[in-house]
Amino acid sequence: MNHSSNDTQAVKLTGEEVAKHNNEESCWVIINGRAYDVTEFMPEHPGGMKIILKYAGKDGTEAYAPIHPPDTLDKYLDKSKHLGEVDMNTVQQEEKEVDPDEAERQERIQRMPILEQCYNLMDFEAVARRVMKKSAWAYYSSGADDEITLRENHSAFHKIWFRPRVLVDVERIDTSTTMLGTKVSMPFYVTATALGKLGNPEGEVVLTRGAKKHNVIQMIPTLASCSFDEIVDAKEGDQVQWLQLYVNKDRAITKRIIEHAEKRGCKGLFITVDAPQLGRREKDMRSKFDDVGSNVQNTGGDNVDRSQGAARAISSFIDPSLSWKDIPWFLSVTNMPIILKGVQRVEDVMRAIAAGVHGVVLSNHGGRQLDTARSGIEILAEVMPELRRMGLDKKIEIYIDGGVRRATDIIKALCLGATGVGIGRPFLYAMSAYGLPGVDRAMQLLKDEMEMNMRLIGCSRVEELGPDMVDTRGLSMHTTSISDTLGLNVYDPLVGPKEKARL
Amino acid sequence: MNHSSNDTQAVKLTGEEVAKHNNEESCWVIINGRAYDVTEFMPEHPGGMKIILKYAGKDGTEAYAPIHPPDTLDKYLDKSKHLGEVDMNTVQQEEKEVDPDEAERQERIQRMPILEQCYNLMDFEAVARRVMKKSAWAYYSSGADDEITLRENHSAFHKIWFRPRVLVDVERIDTSTTMLGTKVSMPFYVTATALGKLGNPEGEVVLTRGAKKHNVIQMIPTLASCSFDEIVDAKEGDQVQWLQLYVNKDRAITKRIIEHAEKRGCKGLFITVDAPQLGRREKDMRSKFDDVGSNVQNTGGDNVDRSQGAARAISSFIDPSLSWKDIPWFLSVTNMPIILKGVQRVEDVMRAIAAGVHGVVLSNHGGRQLDTARSGIEILAEVMPELRRMGLDKKIEIYIDGGVRRATDIIKALCLGATGVGIGRPFLYAMSAYGLPGVDRAMQLLKDEMEMNMRLIGCSRVEELGPDMVDTRGLSMHTTSISDTLGLNVYDPLVGPKEKARL
Amino acid sequence: MNHSSNDTQAVKLTGEEVAKHNNEESCWVIINGRAYDVTEFMPEHPGGMKIILKYAGKDGTEAYAPIHPPDTLDKYLDKSKHLGEVDMNTVQQEEKEVDPDEAERQERIQRMPILEQCYNLMDFEAVARRVMKKSAWAYYSSGADDEITLRENHSAFHKIWFRPRVLVDVERIDTSTTMLGTKVSMPFYVTATALGKLGNPEGEVVLTRGAKKHNVIQMIPTLASCSFDEIVDAKEGDQVQWLQLYVNKDRAITKRIIEHAEKRGCKGLFITVDAPQLGRREKDMRSKFDDVGSNVQNTGGDNVDRSQGAARAISSFIDPSLSWKDIPWFLSVTNMPIILKGVQRVEDVMRAIAAGVHGVVLSNHGGRQLDTARSGIEILAEVMPELRRMGLDKKIEIYIDGGVRRATDIIKALCLGATGVGIGRPFLYAMSAYGLPGVDRAMQLLKDEMEMNMRLIGCSRVEELGPDMVDTRGLSMHTTSISDTLGLNVYDPLVGPKEKARL
Amino acid sequence: MNHSSNDTQAVKLTGEEVAKHNNEESCWVIINGRAYDVTEFMPEHPGGMKIILKYAGKDGTEAYAPIHPPDTLDKYLDKSKHLGEVDMNTVQQEEKEVDPDEAERQERIQRMPILEQCYNLMDFEAVARRVMKKSAWAYYSSGADDEITLRENHSAFHKIWFRPRVLVDVERIDTSTTMLGTKVSMPFYVTATALGKLGNPEGEVVLTRGAKKHNVIQMIPTLASCSFDEIVDAKEGDQVQWLQLYVNKDRAITKRIIEHAEKRGCKGLFITVDAPQLGRREKDMRSKFDDVGSNVQNTGGDNVDRSQGAARAISSFIDPSLSWKDIPWFLSVTNMPIILKGVQRVEDVMRAIAAGVHGVVLSNHGGRQLDTARSGIEILAEVMPELRRMGLDKKIEIYIDGGVRRATDIIKALCLGATGVGIGRPFLYAMSAYGLPGVDRAMQLLKDEMEMNMRLIGCSRVEELGPDMVDTRGLSMHTTSISDTLGLNVYDPLVGPKEKARL
Repeated sequence: MNHSSNDTQAVKLTGEEVAKHNNEESCWVIINGRAYDVTEFMPEHPGGMKIILKYAGKDGTEAYAPIHPPDTLDKYLDKSKHLGEVDMNTVQQEEKEVDPDEAERQERIQRMPILEQCYNLMDFEAVARRVMKKSAWAYYSSGADDEITLRENHSAFHKIWFRPRVLVDVERIDTSTTMLGTKVSMPFYVTATALGKLGNPEGEVVLTRGAKKHNVIQMIPTLASCSFDEIVDAKEGDQVQWLQLYVNKDRAITKRIIEHAEKRGCKGLFITVDAPQLGRREKDMRSKFDDVGSNVQNTGGDNVDRSQGAARAISSFIDPSLSWKDIPWFLSVTNMPIILKGVQRVEDVMRAIAAGVHGVVLSNHGGRQLDTARSGIEILAEVMPELRRMGLDKKIEIYIDGGVRRATDIIKALCLGATGVGIGRPFLYAMSAYGLPGVDRAMQLLKDEMEMNMRLIGCSRVEELGPDMVDTRGLSMHTTSISDTLGLNVYDPLVGPKEKARL
Repeated sequence: MNHSSNDTQAVKLTGEEVAKHNNEESCWVIINGRAYDVTEFMPEHPGGMKIILKYAGKDGTEAYAPIHPPDTLDKYLDKSKHLGEVDMNTVQQEEKEVDPDEAERQERIQRMPILEQCYNLMDFEAVARRVMKKSAWAYYSSGADDEITLRENHSAFHKIWFRPRVLVDVERIDTSTTMLGTKVSMPFYVTATALGKLGNPEGEVVLTRGAKKHNVIQMIPTLASCSFDEIVDAKEGDQVQWLQLYVNKDRAITKRIIEHAEKRGCKGLFITVDAPQLGRREKDMRSKFDDVGSNVQNTGGDNVDRSQGAARAISSFIDPSLSWKDIPWFLSVTNMPIILKGVQRVEDVMRAIAAGVHGVVLSNHGGRQLDTARSGIEILAEVMPELRRMGLDKKIEIYIDGGVRRATDIIKALCLGATGVGIGRPFLYAMSAYGLPGVDRAMQLLKDEMEMNMRLIGCSRVEELGPDMVDTRGLSMHTTSISDTLGLNVYDPLVGPKEKARL
Repeated sequence: MNHSSNDTQAVKLTGEEVAKHNNEESCWVIINGRAYDVTEFMPEHPGGMKIILKYAGKDGTEAYAPIHPPDTLDKYLDKSKHLGEVDMNTVQQEEKEVDPDEAERQERIQRMPILEQCYNLMDFEAVARRVMKKSAWAYYSSGADDEITLRENHSAFHKIWFRPRVLVDVERIDTSTTMLGTKVSMPFYVTATALGKLGNPEGEVVLTRGAKKHNVIQMIPTLASCSFDEIVDAKEGDQVQWLQLYVNKDRAITKRIIEHAEKRGCKGLFITVDAPQLGRREKDMRSKFDDVGSNVQNTGGDNVDRSQGAARAISSFIDPSLSWKDIPWFLSVTNMPIILKGVQRVEDVMRAIAAGVHGVVLSNHGGRQLDTARSGIEILAEVMPELRRMGLDKKIEIYIDGGVRRATDIIKALCLGATGVGIGRPFLYAMSAYGLPGVDRAMQLLKDEMEMNMRLIGCSRVEELGPDMVDTRGLSMHTTSISDTLGLNVYDPLVGPKEKARL
Repeated sequence: MNHSSNDTQAVKLTGEEVAKHNNEESCWVIINGRAYDVTEFMPEHPGGMKIILKYAGKDGTEAYAPIHPPDTLDKYLDKSKHLGEVDMNTVQQEEKEVDPDEAERQERIQRMPILEQCYNLMDFEAVARRVMKKSAWAYYSSGADDEITLRENHSAFHKIWFRPRVLVDVERIDTSTTMLGTKVSMPFYVTATALGKLGNPEGEVVLTRGAKKHNVIQMIPTLASCSFDEIVDAKEGDQVQWLQLYVNKDRAITKRIIEHAEKRGCKGLFITVDAPQLGRREKDMRSKFDDVGSNVQNTGGDNVDRSQGAARAISSFIDPSLSWKDIPWFLSVTNMPIILKGVQRVEDVMRAIAAGVHGVVLSNHGGRQLDTARSGIEILAEVMPELRRMGLDKKIEIYIDGGVRRATDIIKALCLGATGVGIGRPFLYAMSAYGLPGVDRAMQLLKDEMEMNMRLIGCSRVEELGPDMVDTRGLSMHTTSISDTLGLNVYDPLVGPKEKARL
């Protein structure tokens, strides 16, 4: 959209010229065939200076592309620093170091299981872990602090047990439902996750196509690798998309984004409320450290390196002062239904109803923000009885996300009162490992599981699912246990029958 | 019974002729010395096309026999496709590939522990796992989804603790009881399990003989490898059998089965109500994948291979529309007592009483159907107090199955109010590893345990067992726990005294 | 006492003569230099025939001695079968097979940690496991079935947490208390355990000496390796002993035992009530199987070998018909206080009070009888509030045993209302590994722990310990948990900082 | 301060002379260039005789320095035994044995991760474990008995889950609070821990400097390696310190210490009430055993070696008779606020309020005293509701310590009502591994976590944290679980998709 001030340059820059600006005093980098002077910008780079200096005087496109939306430089770097085109023939090809980790990864890619060997959503994760780039894996898979909430999210479902009905006619199963007025084939949606190109060069549009095929809704992330318009352009027919919104400190920008989304047909505005600051994810930070490397030991506490992984690098614009008093403004600037994403207690659900929004997502942000925050499904089990008690359970749509891996998980959420569930990482992993066919199969597997498990619980339509079909008594029993080290050491464990000795 | 239309053929087919029909366009296979044209049937094969094509133009008997009852081809393949006898001398002997897994298995069979080394029911499973064919093991041992219910079934018994009585005269222990009017020596029965020939070439009749020896009842499965009549023919004297029934979409067939069973002396009709669709068992599916193999990567979501292990392959006739309103019909077509197998909540037990059936089996189908369904024993602990409260506990016989491995498990079920328990897999494993002597010893071990544990709990007859003899407070506490990874990593565990260094 | 009928023989038997009787038709064995004809007795041998046939025609003393009290042959083999002395010079020395296990054990004995390296009672078990004979270890360490109760016994203490008092003068700690009228230095006693010579050639008298040194009471077992009189003879001064009694089917024998014990000064009669039949302990049974060996596969269920480890072999005389109506008789035949050992529920404690006995031991027999029976400490937590509620808590002395390894365990029992606790295996292990010095150190360690922990809980005398000093809310929460196999497999665990690579 | 009576000696002692006194009959040792006759003192040495005899006739400075405060010999050894200066040139240099453990440690130090690789407090522990001297690590890291309380301390925080608020303006986070009248930047203080020089040659003054930098309070330990005055001298400006006090049997000494501390500006007196006797820490004891070695097996129980690690060696002066009736005296001798450190139940908090003290620390002494004592955070959850119920929650300041590793842990304590938390070991580990920069970074990491997590829980000031923000339902559920050995052995775990075979 914007045109750089140097667009009219007659002569291209040479690699040699750029290469001179290879240090803190003067730092140029080449991105997509153009040079930029980032000397002044560098200290403000959300991802830290070090990573920029690694590419000072060089072509940084390969590292830059997957984690910066296409319009980043236009938006954030003053036009005067856009130095114009570079004659790429004159740029010295970097000898790539042979990275033994990368070589092993390539080998693993050769030996990838075929898609048919994936029988459930965990299988895609197992494959993705082996074939994704280490840093991409670290970004997707990491969670806050000790990753206790990350793991609790799925684990919580295992504390809920079914009370199925039998002898119900379940010949025809209908898994369709309605979310914010849109009829969908299955009670889940593709929730927003950042930086899709880390896993697949095409990015989020792969998910758009998968969602179309299975008639489910995609939520478009603010921090996508593809631009918003690319993702909207990828939709087909009457396909429905929602927008996930990180609210910018500059409300004018936010307003522009909302209005644009509404104009382009988005049918829901999901405002993230659990991320006034993006979480520290140590797995991601360690991965970044390995990447940047370091030869000099920095021993001063003052000088703590604040570059904290990809998450923090991309989120500095988010407004930490966002509060309940901003809600009326949002309601005034759009006709899209508004849903608060990241609500974590019943009191705030009540407040959301009072504020007049149309829905909430009970979520802890995939375990990436506050560790030992409760799972969405546990919050749901707290929220719904209270709403029912007050006759408010029809006033608002309740969604949850986090840890959903099986159709049984979805069914449990619906039994407890959710309208639908968001699924994020599993589709990223499927896309990273197998592209669109992976996403397609992941959704198909969910559909097959869904149909079967609806039959087995004795319900032919999702409306029939209710709280009497689950036993949640163990759900809030968060126990830990300390092993009896000496006792376990001295215990002589039982063994089974011994085989005859080999001759 | 049926005679194929080509029975009168004068000249046998040759192997060469059959071998020409080795592809999707024309596919013949030889089974038990006869050729069949399955070209048209193939797409409807519940086990998928791939497995048939593997034997196109060849002799498929070895793979076919254990998983198809003897009368399958007569029943399901039109007579016009029965091509008649083949001169087996002209059929080229397949060079068997040397399968390293199979070679190792043969070696393990050589080194099998002797039967006396099995001291409990788990021991048979330990041996069977090592000596059974991989695919047979996969079919028997697999459960639904994450196999959480599969494992919970046995684990649940460990959450129930005894409150034994002392100073009771327990010199003479009587473990006999009465089930549906039949006096049996021990309060368990051999429950129905499919495809017995996978584990033992003789199939279910081995169990018939074992049950006779120990005077317990065998429940005959619909999906047996032996035909129903073979199993009934194997009974001796006044031995009692029950019939497990999967209800066919075609009620005429179902009626014929029931009437035949009653005529042949069956004393109970157990209608399976927890399997409107047979479960996905991924261990079984992976095993089948390995078996069929695949050279071409199938990447389209559309084209998801739906061949889902042995379970799904054999069950496509089951009626998913079976419902409470069918019960009066069943009561009208037989004088056998009717028991609903697979009830999973107290509301449905009430309904069963109201419907006039004679019993229920609280069961989750051995953990093979809906994952995170509760164990039979946990359901029992929910059901009985409610029945007693309403004075209904004598109205119906309550059985449970799933996870029973020890006499203590049986005693716990009886304490909580069960009339008896069903045991399935352990006898399959005993039969697969050691044949009839294995089944015999397994039952004898249970009997020895039963007698001892009745003494130790202070009851000389099963009628004396009551709910005050068990503590079930932990039973419904389904907890999970998330490990503290970093904390465990840095903890320096205690160790015992160090040995002196070797000189 | 008894004199064999062949005592007057003039000529000794020769090894050659004995060696002829080496089979089932005629079986002689030499024990302690004398020959015995056991042909007729063999089928009744509680330990099975096989083990006797192993020594047919040979000298069996080494295997016989540790598991038969010295007077066994006099008591159980008719005098006519006592064949008289053998000239041991004529007996062929058995070439001992080189047993690699035994060679390794000897090596481990060479490298035993010194006694000072044992800092707690588990340490003796760790050492004993490495240096004891395998069969002896199996007999001492084994428990019933899955050994769940065996392990629960100690584990249960870890579910009880302290509520210590501070700012209490604990300069002088007095750990003494009174048990059945006897003042003891510490609130534990050495409970009865069978077959002491398996662990130490001197047997139970070692425990007698240890108990004397620390002024605690020893309970003499019915199934000791030493004879009753040997153990009583080993006591010094006013040392107090109790008698543990397995009640014989022949009450005249029982009466004789009781009267003899009272005459020899025993101050308490502990009647075992939890063992109408001794438990199956599979670890012990497997160990015995390995010992006897087997060349022929016995495949018939009929022919199940009933020789079930040392435990069953020595206990066939126990009366399973013992009941509450026998209690008045016991009260009539002795002035010793009577304590019922093995009571497991509050109803039976009530009944014991009504029957007029002086105490009960809440015990599950060291986890060796009924598996998933509750721990003594859990039963205590059930019993005492009920007794207090009914004003009966002073009517009877309550002891517990099972799983006590730390002074904190003892203190917890006392807080909950026990008069004292029995400790068995730890002293056996200490004795097996280090003899009397081991027992001495084990008791000293307990004393040191006891004194320290009394200080730390804020009590200077045992009378001050009360139920407000412990938190038992988790005690009855018997949970189990099923691992999420796939989820754990795909989780990428957090790691700490990586070391620099080695150059 | 004191001058030895031999200070006026004209001629220095020679190494040869000292070396003659190398046994129990006459034992001299050289410390810091001076000789001391410890023959008579030796039997009273709290650390045992063996360790002194190891240095008899030799220079013991290296072993002595880190565990004895500088003024120890002046205080505890009669002046007549101070033999005067030694001519160190005449002292034979000990050939140091090559210790393979130490060589490996030096290698590990070479490969230490750089400071920036530490992302949380556990990381310092991971590094310290690898680079600290074994005995120092054993002293710092060890806990009482089975170290169950040690581990529970951190684990307990994982049983508390957050109920965060959203849509709160958290742009500006203020983590400051007030403790005993002092404004601090973060709601934690550096709690007292003994023997800082074991980890860092400079000792506790490193912590003084770190505390200054981050404006938090340091509590000075009685058992510091630096002298009290050295630590006070190290403070800067208006930096605030508190004194931790072990009360001496001799109250005059205690009074002198208190008055001196007040004079030197200490702002709080923390009287340790949970250590009438210092705990047995077996990890420490085993480490000491390895150190001292032993050639002769000591088999007598009498002669149990009572030297029980560093802890016991330094604490023999502590008064076990300290009690509530001493509190008025403490209040009378100082104007510093008095806090009782180590309170463990609500009854004692009530009593503390009644006694007029200003605060309590709910603590179990870092898991080093009474094992299976509850965590501080669990006690807090018991105490605060009761105080609030009685309107006493503002009467006293409540602190907790033990197991704090994350800002989330601190926040949980504040939510439940604590004024602040003490942190000990993590700073010792940071100091041991990286010196002051380590302490600095550790505090900075906590600050970063604190700020982020305050945002994520939705509170901008610590006063806003309240009990409704946490879910503590699982906190008191102390469960343990017994594994089902045979069942786990026979279970065939699920696996993910298999890679293609390597060619």
